[in-house]
Amino acid sequence: MNSFGIVFRVTLFGESHGPAIGVIIDGCPPGITIKSDDFMADLRRRQSGSIGTTTRQEPDLPEILSGVLDGATTGAPVTLITRNSDKISSDYDEFKNVPRPGHADFVSRVKHSGFADMRGSGHFSGRITWGVVAAGVLAKKITGSADVSAKLISAGGSDDIEKAINEAIASNDTIGGIIECRVKNPPLALGEPFFYSFKSAVSHMIFSIPAIKGIEFGSGFASAAMKGSEHNDPFINSNGKTASNNSGGINGGITNGNEIIFRIVVKPTSSTGVEQKTFNFKTGEMTSLKVKGRHDTCIALRMPVIVEAATAIAMADLILIDRGIHGQRNV
Amino acid sequence: MNSFGIVFRVTLFGESHGPAIGVIIDGCPPGITIKSDDFMADLRRRQSGSIGTTTRQEPDLPEILSGVLDGATTGAPVTLITRNSDKISSDYDEFKNVPRPGHADFVSRVKHSGFADMRGSGHFSGRITWGVVAAGVLAKKITGSADVSAKLISAGGSDDIEKAINEAIASNDTIGGIIECRVKNPPLALGEPFFYSFKSAVSHMIFSIPAIKGIEFGSGFASAAMKGSEHNDPFINSNGKTASNNSGGINGGITNGNEIIFRIVVKPTSSTGVEQKTFNFKTGEMTSLKVKGRHDTCIALRMPVIVEAATAIAMADLILIDRGIHGQRNV
Amino acid sequence: MNSFGIVFRVTLFGESHGPAIGVIIDGCPPGITIKSDDFMADLRRRQSGSIGTTTRQEPDLPEILSGVLDGATTGAPVTLITRNSDKISSDYDEFKNVPRPGHADFVSRVKHSGFADMRGSGHFSGRITWGVVAAGVLAKKITGSADVSAKLISAGGSDDIEKAINEAIASNDTIGGIIECRVKNPPLALGEPFFYSFKSAVSHMIFSIPAIKGIEFGSGFASAAMKGSEHNDPFINSNGKTASNNSGGINGGITNGNEIIFRIVVKPTSSTGVEQKTFNFKTGEMTSLKVKGRHDTCIALRMPVIVEAATAIAMADLILIDRGIHGQRNV
Amino acid sequence: MNSFGIVFRVTLFGESHGPAIGVIIDGCPPGITIKSDDFMADLRRRQSGSIGTTTRQEPDLPEILSGVLDGATTGAPVTLITRNSDKISSDYDEFKNVPRPGHADFVSRVKHSGFADMRGSGHFSGRITWGVVAAGVLAKKITGSADVSAKLISAGGSDDIEKAINEAIASNDTIGGIIECRVKNPPLALGEPFFYSFKSAVSHMIFSIPAIKGIEFGSGFASAAMKGSEHNDPFINSNGKTASNNSGGINGGITNGNEIIFRIVVKPTSSTGVEQKTFNFKTGEMTSLKVKGRHDTCIALRMPVIVEAATAIAMADLILIDRGIHGQRNV
Repeated sequence: MNSFGIVFRVTLFGESHGPAIGVIIDGCPPGITIKSDDFMADLRRRQSGSIGTTTRQEPDLPEILSGVLDGATTGAPVTLITRNSDKISSDYDEFKNVPRPGHADFVSRVKHSGFADMRGSGHFSGRITWGVVAAGVLAKKITGSADVSAKLISAGGSDDIEKAINEAIASNDTIGGIIECRVKNPPLALGEPFFYSFKSAVSHMIFSIPAIKGIEFGSGFASAAMKGSEHNDPFINSNGKTASNNSGGINGGITNGNEIIFRIVVKPTSSTGVEQKTFNFKTGEMTSLKVKGRHDTCIALRMPVIVEAATAIAMADLILIDRGIHGQRNV
Repeated sequence: MNSFGIVFRVTLFGESHGPAIGVIIDGCPPGITIKSDDFMADLRRRQSGSIGTTTRQEPDLPEILSGVLDGATTGAPVTLITRNSDKISSDYDEFKNVPRPGHADFVSRVKHSGFADMRGSGHFSGRITWGVVAAGVLAKKITGSADVSAKLISAGGSDDIEKAINEAIASNDTIGGIIECRVKNPPLALGEPFFYSFKSAVSHMIFSIPAIKGIEFGSGFASAAMKGSEHNDPFINSNGKTASNNSGGINGGITNGNEIIFRIVVKPTSSTGVEQKTFNFKTGEMTSLKVKGRHDTCIALRMPVIVEAATAIAMADLILIDRGIHGQRNV
Repeated sequence: MNSFGIVFRVTLFGESHGPAIGVIIDGCPPGITIKSDDFMADLRRRQSGSIGTTTRQEPDLPEILSGVLDGATTGAPVTLITRNSDKISSDYDEFKNVPRPGHADFVSRVKHSGFADMRGSGHFSGRITWGVVAAGVLAKKITGSADVSAKLISAGGSDDIEKAINEAIASNDTIGGIIECRVKNPPLALGEPFFYSFKSAVSHMIFSIPAIKGIEFGSGFASAAMKGSEHNDPFINSNGKTASNNSGGINGGITNGNEIIFRIVVKPTSSTGVEQKTFNFKTGEMTSLKVKGRHDTCIALRMPVIVEAATAIAMADLILIDRGIHGQRNV
Repeated sequence: MNSFGIVFRVTLFGESHGPAIGVIIDGCPPGITIKSDDFMADLRRRQSGSIGTTTRQEPDLPEILSGVLDGATTGAPVTLITRNSDKISSDYDEFKNVPRPGHADFVSRVKHSGFADMRGSGHFSGRITWGVVAAGVLAKKITGSADVSAKLISAGGSDDIEKAINEAIASNDTIGGIIECRVKNPPLALGEPFFYSFKSAVSHMIFSIPAIKGIEFGSGFASAAMKGSEHNDPFINSNGKTASNNSGGINGGITNGNEIIFRIVVKPTSSTGVEQKTFNFKTGEMTSLKVKGRHDTCIALRMPVIVEAATAIAMADLILIDRGIHGQRNV
């Protein structure tokens, strides 16, 4: 189930320490201007390097295997891969029997009956999101004048994010964060009742990204304590503009043309330098584990561009479906 | 896009004031014991009648049109319908031009180019969730020994729910709430990487339900302020049991065998008795609106059973997919 | 797997002797003019009554349960049902243990582990094609100016169809036939590489219809004995018109704008009045069987309208997909 | 729409003269023994080299990019690519304006609004079937003891295939052929009513392959001239074995356990050395064309292994779906 989308369809593949990871974007309209370099701006935002991110350094350069000719998409599936280069697999040997708490080690062993590639978390690695970001670059070209923008608004519970990161580094521990995504000038009427609402499509994509613990739209969890008269957003003009935006730009699961707003929460990186308890499946006894490897203090730092890509991919699919069913709309 | 699921596939249809609403459950294994009456226990939990719910009274009796014979599913698609009886369509005439804030009136008119059935919110009505609950009854039979249970844990921001409801009724306004869903004894290893994780499947279903504003798994939004050493759940035995459960029973998007826990937030009912501002699309001027009709003070009161059904449906699909790919597992 | 289509999505349900059979058409654009009566012209062509068809008489009147208001589709799923009335289930009791040769009795018992509704062949009955024809009526409105037309061109190996039918009736046996389907003025460029070519979509639909044994496009099986220089259709103008039409209007799996032509073969009705050998699964011995019930001498007589509907449904889905991905084309 | 399958899902990509072509096999069970060399036996059967096939020589060596570790599938998607090496793109320059009769040149230009990669027919090239064959190797491991075997049974209308090929070469022309595919020991009860019958799944796959003009199961087109009493296959034992096999091993769209038999017709290669008429879209006048390039006299020679692969892929998907819904069956 490594594909998302009904018409604009993204398929991911690869393992953290395999030869390459990649993505296929199918259902991509022909004639979209794109070249290898166009992918790097977003791919670079996903890369490590800054304070609080892993020392694993991947060039991440995309090779276009199909679907692009003379600087434009051809209508055939676009395939992008990047080779894995900076691999230290020995770091991961012990996790087969001593699963890291919070990681997919335990479930991937069970799920795949012991055959999973567990090096660097294999197919469960955050590295696989390279393909999400690459597909997002094309998706953003389809969402047109809509401006999808996500940023980290708090880390470790604080909005002084730099300070929070430095404190976590000092304690050799990790922290989580909250990312807010906004879409300015979104298309009106995106989302298909009953089961492919805008929220369903976006949350489906968002929860594919490792480490996400929750999502809320507009006033979100705060809505529970609001009154209806307070929560409702009054319409104020014939374009459907509303005076407030508690709905986050969505009514009945469908975009109402106002700014789309949602927030997601990213858990603290599971690979902490602090010693932890876990179970040794070989000895049958509790043991303690100190994750070495190279990891991010706050993985949320690298995720805004992934959230943008996930959102743009869901929107691109909804746009093509809507255009298929409804064509050009006059209302 | 009124279907959900890849192997266990649920399709909804109907409008609030049309002749009937219904559901098809396809991919349902043969030999599941079921009769019309079995649906009523859950359908009754969804019904109105108690304090804080609408005075619209629907018998909601299911008619089985296909897929069941001699008290068992046959392997053919199961179709259930119920007739709409208690309809007062005239209540809704004005909303075509004067969309109710917070409702789907505006978007449904645009989405369907003016052809939408807007009586009682038509296909956007919460009434359509009848089919979700009915399908959930069958889905629960597939999830086997797993015990899916949801309850309202707060309303209007308070855990004294009764008091909150009464206050809202007194003020002629509406309130939201928070529902917690727990699955005891869940199957291990449900969820398919990369794009059909347990969280993706469940959130996709959950956000199809009208009025949901957010979802969080395990420690959810609180995770952002936790440290990794604190958030990680140590494994303590060979079944994967963990000492804490901040992950809500899910690692790497896959169930780890521990109790599944998530919470959702339901917005206050949009149809409030308090006078509101909105835009009159006919006159092109602002106007005020007092929603008459018959509505729920706190729609969240009726939603735990819908949340259970949505969860069970997502789980049933994941179970059949997992069994298809992996067969019986020995690990 | 009772659904077909990716955007324009048709779902069938019901059993021959159950309460009702029906169909949901999802992804149907709003604003298509339709009323109950519009379905009857095609449904009547599918009905029995003429020489060579069964004496089972079903009124087949459609009830619209959802998706249509004031004579137009609303954009919500269109649901149509018809009640089964003329049922004589006792005819079918013995087939559980003594499967009729050529019928689905044996496989349906195995497939559904003994729980299948076998009365009148249950969900395997040709009666289920009522929903295909009903959905086809809507699909034909989407295919626009394309004129989909199928007719029986031979029966029992002869093009004097009436004579062939009469001879079969006289011998108390049954015969097959060949149906040719032509689409005049088809849209150009329908079909999606690689796996949803026009031929793939149409043959997928066609082989869902019971009793179909083969399909061939354009010069079909005769192509094997042709030379390339003879088989190729020369283009003769800038619209892509070709001088000959051995390709049946399809190049590279995509419509080239010329008339679409294909033929299908329908086997002789399995329920023949002639005594046949079969195996008694209860006694474990060979036995002989004379199918009573009420059956068609030549089921192919009733199938042109089903073939048209199947074709139109596949085309409607391809049209909406193409419009979604490509929008309006200038080439 | 470059994916096929619901649970076992095959996605193709690449162009004839692009950097590489490839395939992703998703939903592939973990633990299947496989290594790069295992693919070559079937890939070699697809290669050219023998009399009557093109002089284009591709090594076709597969590189495994993901999903295989230590000689077994891991449960993650399996990705295979092969680089295109022997490309002579200049051969194809003129076909943009002067489409070759019988080829996809005209439709691909229109379909993809002029952006299609038309070198070597681009994504429409038969070269793309490399991925079908590669996926088929894995699929055959899932179909287990079933033995899928296809062979060319006639060429140019003659069963003396060698003679027919030599005559065609002598005349500088091309010929078609008929391939018969048989599956010995097929699983019982494969195929899902109503829309994913065995015939639907197989024909959908088969008609994805370029150059196929028709398919017939069992007695196929000859059935039209048979009587029911003659066409029906009497059951003769409790395993469902039948005395004859006019049904080709399929009743009601579902495998009945008898040998599966179907035939397909392959058109003569469109690229013939004989001079042909076509339309010049630039000059707006008729012109004549002599296809140079390097082509197959009888493409059907290379197709039996592709037909086997297509069949095995469809079967693998049906097997996983059946196991998901029905688990182990006792009947």
